[in-house]
Amino acid sequence: MRELLLAGKRRVRELWMVDEGGDAPILADIRELAAANRVAVTIVGRGRLAAQARSEAPQGVLALAAPLPEAALDDLVASGPGRPAPFLVALDGVTDPGNLGAILRSAECAGVTGALLPRHRAVHVTPAATKAAAGAIEHVPLAVVGGLPAALADLRRAGVHVVGLDGAATTSLYEMAGGDGPLCLVLGAEGRGLSRLVRERCDEVVAIPLRGHLGSLNVSAAAALACFEIARRR
Amino acid sequence: MRELLLAGKRRVRELWMVDEGGDAPILADIRELAAANRVAVTIVGRGRLAAQARSEAPQGVLALAAPLPEAALDDLVASGPGRPAPFLVALDGVTDPGNLGAILRSAECAGVTGALLPRHRAVHVTPAATKAAAGAIEHVPLAVVGGLPAALADLRRAGVHVVGLDGAATTSLYEMAGGDGPLCLVLGAEGRGLSRLVRERCDEVVAIPLRGHLGSLNVSAAAALACFEIARRR
Repeated sequence: MRELLLAGKRRVRELWMVDEGGDAPILADIRELAAANRVAVTIVGRGRLAAQARSEAPQGVLALAAPLPEAALDDLVASGPGRPAPFLVALDGVTDPGNLGAILRSAECAGVTGALLPRHRAVHVTPAATKAAAGAIEHVPLAVVGGLPAALADLRRAGVHVVGLDGAATTSLYEMAGGDGPLCLVLGAEGRGLSRLVRERCDEVVAIPLRGHLGSLNVSAAAALACFEIARRR
Repeated sequence: MRELLLAGKRRVRELWMVDEGGDAPILADIRELAAANRVAVTIVGRGRLAAQARSEAPQGVLALAAPLPEAALDDLVASGPGRPAPFLVALDGVTDPGNLGAILRSAECAGVTGALLPRHRAVHVTPAATKAAAGAIEHVPLAVVGGLPAALADLRRAGVHVVGLDGAATTSLYEMAGGDGPLCLVLGAEGRGLSRLVRERCDEVVAIPLRGHLGSLNVSAAAALACFEIARRR
């Protein structure tokens, strides 16, 4: 909520807040931001808020806001003076909204400049994803693409180095070739990894070396590790 | 389930499986492991399994097993020929079971040799934590300690370098002093970070440098980054 107001990317019509006496600093912060953005704040009962909220555990504040704007693929690869080289994340068939949100949060913290989601057979930005993203969706432009393999081919033509992350790869993440130029990291589905068509569109496919007994990391943990490894090289 | 049988650390009395015709490879794998471990397999209806299961989404198989054994702190720091230097993770007030499980899973994948949980005011190994851990609790010995500050003092006396992770620290994770000897990484609670008493017991406190707009990573993403950074130094 704080990030929605701070980022200022979409129009917020009204804020509903529950007044429960105790004033958490985060709520005072949000009220101040709302005033600065000339957003009307309405105090409501917890019941009315819960009925309107689409998240399972609304945290006492709800915004009536314009829908999340979709970015075009071209915007994500645009570069220019003062803009960092594109650092993108693409999700290939991730299905769990909590994972999507967690990935976007870690990606934003690593300095990712945009994300690609396939329109079909994948997860969308549900309330659960929004909650796990902890504000990241307000800062990371999202492009929803018809087909991920075609979008990756477009990216490569635009000079973007495409790196797939897949537990079955033989190259270590720490030995990847790409790093400081325009780059797109592709994350595969929970369990299944990258699809064949997507893998074929990657310039390189890397894995995170594991040192325990388990066979795989959670996709959002793997995403955090890969995003921050790339961030270190930039 | 597979990891429970593979690790072989606790006695499994019986396995209940739902027979739904289709034979997923993971279920065949589990059946084979059960046979190798002389564990009786009983085929039950989905209703009976659901009634007995304590997890919200039982996946068609349930083990009647001895409770998870608790490790003693001394066992976690024991070293000897052929044993790697202790690489421990301590949780200071993490409250979300999903985060606990996710942390244990990433920690296991990074080669962590043991974990410390405070007995009070923190999360325990609930069914939700077990599920998110994806088998890690069968491989990572867990010590439940009365007070974390006292346990950390014990570890330091035993020659373990104690590193706290806290977003407010001024030293970067990538510049930490410790690395290849006995080490304990301490993770703070979601939101609040490390408690004062715990922070005072750390040899050093480090933060993960963020490059976006958000103020913090999820604790399980931070744990993955720190565990794998330490793993690289070993």
